[in-house]
Amino acid sequence: MKSTKDKRNILMISASESDANLYYATKFLAPDPFIFVQVRGRRHLLMSDLEVDRARSQSTADQVHSISKLYGDYRKKFGKKADFVEILSSFLKKQKAGPLTVPQDFPVHYADMLRGRGFKISVGEDSFFPERVVKSAYEVKAMQDAIRSVERAFDKVVKLLKKSTIKKGRVFYQGKPVTSESLRQVINVSLMEEGCIAQHTIVACGQHAVDPHDEGSGPILANESIIMDIFPRNGTTRYFADFTRTVVKGKAKPKLKRMYDAVAEGQNIGFRMIKEGVNAREVHQKIHEYFVSLGFLTGVKDGRMQGFFHGTGHGLGLDIHELPRVGGVNEILKAGHVVTVEPGLYYADAGGVRLEDVVVVTKRGNRNLTKYPKFLEIA
Amino acid sequence: MKSTKDKRNILMISASESDANLYYATKFLAPDPFIFVQVRGRRHLLMSDLEVDRARSQSTADQVHSISKLYGDYRKKFGKKADFVEILSSFLKKQKAGPLTVPQDFPVHYADMLRGRGFKISVGEDSFFPERVVKSAYEVKAMQDAIRSVERAFDKVVKLLKKSTIKKGRVFYQGKPVTSESLRQVINVSLMEEGCIAQHTIVACGQHAVDPHDEGSGPILANESIIMDIFPRNGTTRYFADFTRTVVKGKAKPKLKRMYDAVAEGQNIGFRMIKEGVNAREVHQKIHEYFVSLGFLTGVKDGRMQGFFHGTGHGLGLDIHELPRVGGVNEILKAGHVVTVEPGLYYADAGGVRLEDVVVVTKRGNRNLTKYPKFLEIA
Repeated sequence: MKSTKDKRNILMISASESDANLYYATKFLAPDPFIFVQVRGRRHLLMSDLEVDRARSQSTADQVHSISKLYGDYRKKFGKKADFVEILSSFLKKQKAGPLTVPQDFPVHYADMLRGRGFKISVGEDSFFPERVVKSAYEVKAMQDAIRSVERAFDKVVKLLKKSTIKKGRVFYQGKPVTSESLRQVINVSLMEEGCIAQHTIVACGQHAVDPHDEGSGPILANESIIMDIFPRNGTTRYFADFTRTVVKGKAKPKLKRMYDAVAEGQNIGFRMIKEGVNAREVHQKIHEYFVSLGFLTGVKDGRMQGFFHGTGHGLGLDIHELPRVGGVNEILKAGHVVTVEPGLYYADAGGVRLEDVVVVTKRGNRNLTKYPKFLEIA
Repeated sequence: MKSTKDKRNILMISASESDANLYYATKFLAPDPFIFVQVRGRRHLLMSDLEVDRARSQSTADQVHSISKLYGDYRKKFGKKADFVEILSSFLKKQKAGPLTVPQDFPVHYADMLRGRGFKISVGEDSFFPERVVKSAYEVKAMQDAIRSVERAFDKVVKLLKKSTIKKGRVFYQGKPVTSESLRQVINVSLMEEGCIAQHTIVACGQHAVDPHDEGSGPILANESIIMDIFPRNGTTRYFADFTRTVVKGKAKPKLKRMYDAVAEGQNIGFRMIKEGVNAREVHQKIHEYFVSLGFLTGVKDGRMQGFFHGTGHGLGLDIHELPRVGGVNEILKAGHVVTVEPGLYYADAGGVRLEDVVVVTKRGNRNLTKYPKFLEIA
């Protein structure tokens, strides 16, 4: 973050562990909320005793203040104890901060208290640090490395399924039933061995795969689609990978094969269209139209959503879902955007199919960071 | 959550993945923000197409609404497209929601927009669902199970250190140097094998251990303190464990031994005092006073914080740090509170020591959920 170019005076109060904007602005990771104040390009952190020394050595802030020292100074000066908002107010006044910009998710509690003391607080744009969506070479490398870890984890599952056998429609490996849970464990443990933290890894088979966010459970069925969507964060770089493949152990039925081919070609439409200057909404629409042209319609059927009822993709970075969206809204793509391309089709009578790669938008096109091959059937 | 007893009309907009209150209220986990509205005890969810079916089958809400259907209905009724706030406003009006209570961390962006349309929004207490701090038997069991997983992971490290050898002040296992990173991997992989997701596991040795939140890096040194603080979330139950032990491979120096004994006895003070009706602040003060009585002072020394400069503990549950605090503020303990007891001492000339168990407050005392023994030296 080049704060010198940013003319806004900024206030953030949150835990950088769960707030990517605050981490992006400070490069300091803490589990509990702390205070970030930017005034005239100078970045201050107000930290508890527990974090103050670590913040001084690890954060990119210009100055780190001890909150307990601010409390002590106030007491000395005014002869009385202050509460948290009084301390923050007097700090902001001392810095002559003036009107402050806060992120959209700034806590209303603090906004109300500061406004009650006369501070002018305005809410920033959806993209609070617009430069965050344009990734540096370091950031792209971090995501590529995380994707490589996922590919190695996924490859273990593919090898396991190749060695598995089918008995009465169920899948067995070394005599034991293969389940969503057992495959998920193979993936998540492999990722943890490489320092990547996977949560909610989707291994969804059969009817589970018809709901795009069903994590999956129970036995893996032969000849049915298995969607595996793996999106860990690298624990060191903090950047995410996002990766989806759909496979069948055994033989896929004709409709599922057609769905798979459609989704693969839908992805190709994305790969061909995505470049700087293109409206992401048009990419999404083209894929949608392609599905419709093949008779793969979207809408409520038998009381549930079926077809292609999620976005084509999303930005990837310090958050698993960040800007820009590749879906039903206007978003002009720029070189350096990193987005997923993940069309899918879901029908209760056939199963679910989703394929997902991650691309970097360039001036002339895009570069696919994902290398793992695509195939439906595993014999 | 027994919403029937809760007279407030409530609005929450967040991702339950990172908002424990919303997860607590809905038992529905989603990575992207969704809307929760409680009106006259009836709980509504407003969901995207992607999540609407899963929310209907998994959440505890009384009614799940499709946002895209609300958009469509609006268009039919008024002959024009609505934006998100218009949809939310018309939903709230239709429900005759009246004044709304939001959590303290409710996004100021939505608060401003709704207030701009005449909605009265007030901010709830710090403990938004007061019943959340009093844990059920199920919740206590979930935390106890997660602690057992941690104890098994930690035991692997203890066994590894027992089998390790010391050469020139460094520690070696099977011919390779033992590092913070290698021990962290043993712990985190073991936890992932049991479905527990560990992040930021602290394995901090020597000078690293003097900063309570330093995660640790580099070679494990013989005869120096190693703080291991392990706090995974169980991926299925969503409840956290929190566990700390301090060990030395080899021989501890006399000051470190005295610090260890002091911290262990500090913990015992906590175990003896904690019961329903006790002010947690007094527990913290007593431990602090005990340390002072032994000459272990707290404050800035040589430009950094030393001594006992964090709280004695914190509530544990769906968040790693939740209410009640056991520190410098008044908090009356109640039966069913689950808190950590984790005093520590940190001096640059000796190292760091922290010991942490988790206890359930009862009417007459407390029950320790942590079973792993405490010892400093590993020969």
